Amino acid sequence: MYTQSDLKNFVNKAILNLSYNDEAEKLNDPVKYILSIGGKRLRPVLALIACNLFSDHIDEAIIPATGLEVFHNFTLVHDDIMDHAPVRRNLPTVHSKWNLNQAVLSGDVMAFIANECFLQTPPRCLLKVFKVFNKAAIEVCVGQQLDIDFEKAALISHEEYLRMIELKTAVLFAASAKIGSIIGGADDKDSELLYEFGRNMGFAFQIQDDLLDIYGDVKVFGKISGGDIISNKKTFLIVKALEIASVEQAKQLHEQFALKEFDPETKVRKVIDIYNQLNIKNISEDLATDYITTAFGLLDKIGVINDRKTELVNLANSLIGRDN
Amino acid sequence: MYTQSDLKNFVNKAILNLSYNDEAEKLNDPVKYILSIGGKRLRPVLALIACNLFSDHIDEAIIPATGLEVFHNFTLVHDDIMDHAPVRRNLPTVHSKWNLNQAVLSGDVMAFIANECFLQTPPRCLLKVFKVFNKAAIEVCVGQQLDIDFEKAALISHEEYLRMIELKTAVLFAASAKIGSIIGGADDKDSELLYEFGRNMGFAFQIQDDLLDIYGDVKVFGKISGGDIISNKKTFLIVKALEIASVEQAKQLHEQFALKEFDPETKVRKVIDIYNQLNIKNISEDLATDYITTAFGLLDKIGVINDRKTELVNLANSLIGRDN
Repeated sequence: MYTQSDLKNFVNKAILNLSYNDEAEKLNDPVKYILSIGGKRLRPVLALIACNLFSDHIDEAIIPATGLEVFHNFTLVHDDIMDHAPVRRNLPTVHSKWNLNQAVLSGDVMAFIANECFLQTPPRCLLKVFKVFNKAAIEVCVGQQLDIDFEKAALISHEEYLRMIELKTAVLFAASAKIGSIIGGADDKDSELLYEFGRNMGFAFQIQDDLLDIYGDVKVFGKISGGDIISNKKTFLIVKALEIASVEQAKQLHEQFALKEFDPETKVRKVIDIYNQLNIKNISEDLATDYITTAFGLLDKIGVINDRKTELVNLANSLIGRDN
Repeated sequence: MYTQSDLKNFVNKAILNLSYNDEAEKLNDPVKYILSIGGKRLRPVLALIACNLFSDHIDEAIIPATGLEVFHNFTLVHDDIMDHAPVRRNLPTVHSKWNLNQAVLSGDVMAFIANECFLQTPPRCLLKVFKVFNKAAIEVCVGQQLDIDFEKAALISHEEYLRMIELKTAVLFAASAKIGSIIGGADDKDSELLYEFGRNMGFAFQIQDDLLDIYGDVKVFGKISGGDIISNKKTFLIVKALEIASVEQAKQLHEQFALKEFDPETKVRKVIDIYNQLNIKNISEDLATDYITTAFGLLDKIGVINDRKTELVNLANSLIGRDN
């Protein structure tokens, strides 16, 4: 069995070995940049652990798994355009470092580099794997659309928020786990269980990500604490808070969001005060834990011995306990 | 044998029958819009004629051929962003009618809708067809990058210009013809000949498109006459003109391009005057005709009886003789 660290190394090596059409160098510079500035490679690592559940030979899965990472980074480049985000992972976003047109076009080519990776899936399961990927890719676009729509909405329910992150984030975790399992030789029942495992893991990941914006360690996590509050970003925390707030608390929250000019620290502090009154941190942590618990329940049903499941358990646990 | 008109109808019907994930309606409105505002469906029609060369049963090729049209329209949506183009086919471009973010995201989903179409290729040739498509898709991105780079360059050679349009335009015609032929059952030699046929046709098409901007009938062609001159767009005409111009003529051309404020009609007239002095119209028409002649030479070598080749000859001829 491979460790997460082994698998991450395989993925990083595969990313370095991606082949490019370099006739117009400028096209690929942003691609190489975004792929080089790190991230945890969670999706391909999840795919490879899922493959390794069923097979000791994961070589065939490495390039398709890398396609998941390329696709994910394609969405980051274009999402950062849409969000006018200047910084990602403490470095300038592609459209900030280059320009809008370069970010559109270099993003585009990444979609086809991802395809190139999926076309290297073993022929016996090419169609199955590509369909799982492509369905998720369309759903991620739908999720991003809901995200845009919700940013303009005054109030959304936590169910609407969860459906949005399901599409925008969780389905790609789900597809990653399912794709790895298919290449590893899982039967339909087990690969469907892996899909559901990944989906639940994806929910937990996103809720944890929302929590870390406020309660994470700035230096380790690499984001300004409370950046989501400063930018009025819809997160599980704020959606839930507005849902359970008293009239007075809701009024105070809306006042903070309406401010055109403000001291960031004061705004963050005032919003967090209300979160604390409403117990939002615990509610969010409990929900993330619920998703991981559901994921573990699904994992129990998968027809391989428990010893093989250790890395998947470790990965899921690291998502809710992680501080980096 | 099917006529171009039959095949265009099949494609239009397939476009209307595309299935969408409609959970976020706003995502697909621009997709349906750009796909509904016409165009000649040249790429899918070329694919279907190429298929029909080898087989009387073209049903299996209709959805993959439609994927070529969806992909082509994806590039139009994103290219129009990059070119700041307000109008396409006499109607507002997607980013003008909606906004930048919507054009980025709705464009993105089209790339995956195109994939969805290619995944419906008959399994016996799925990998082969998808590889041909995806190679072309990456080359189209490279071509668009060269186009952006060249817009900023003071002087480019006509060879550089032709390489750019080869990647940006001709390879998709080439891939279309090859994909159709593969699904129709052509052997490797014939499908390679079809690729070259399509590539040459694509060159002729783009040069003719450059000519039509100036010498086409505005009402029929749906563009402002001389729009490329007004916007200083690099075309075969201007690239060739600068290459063969005298020092004085080149100076006059550069003066026109440098104008910040100008009367459009005067600028167009002055540039066309120099084109006429340099015989640019004939040079360009001759080159387009050369490409079509080369295409016909390739068509001769394809191992099917001449009767079956009629529609392909008609399509190629319509590209250089067309006035609509």
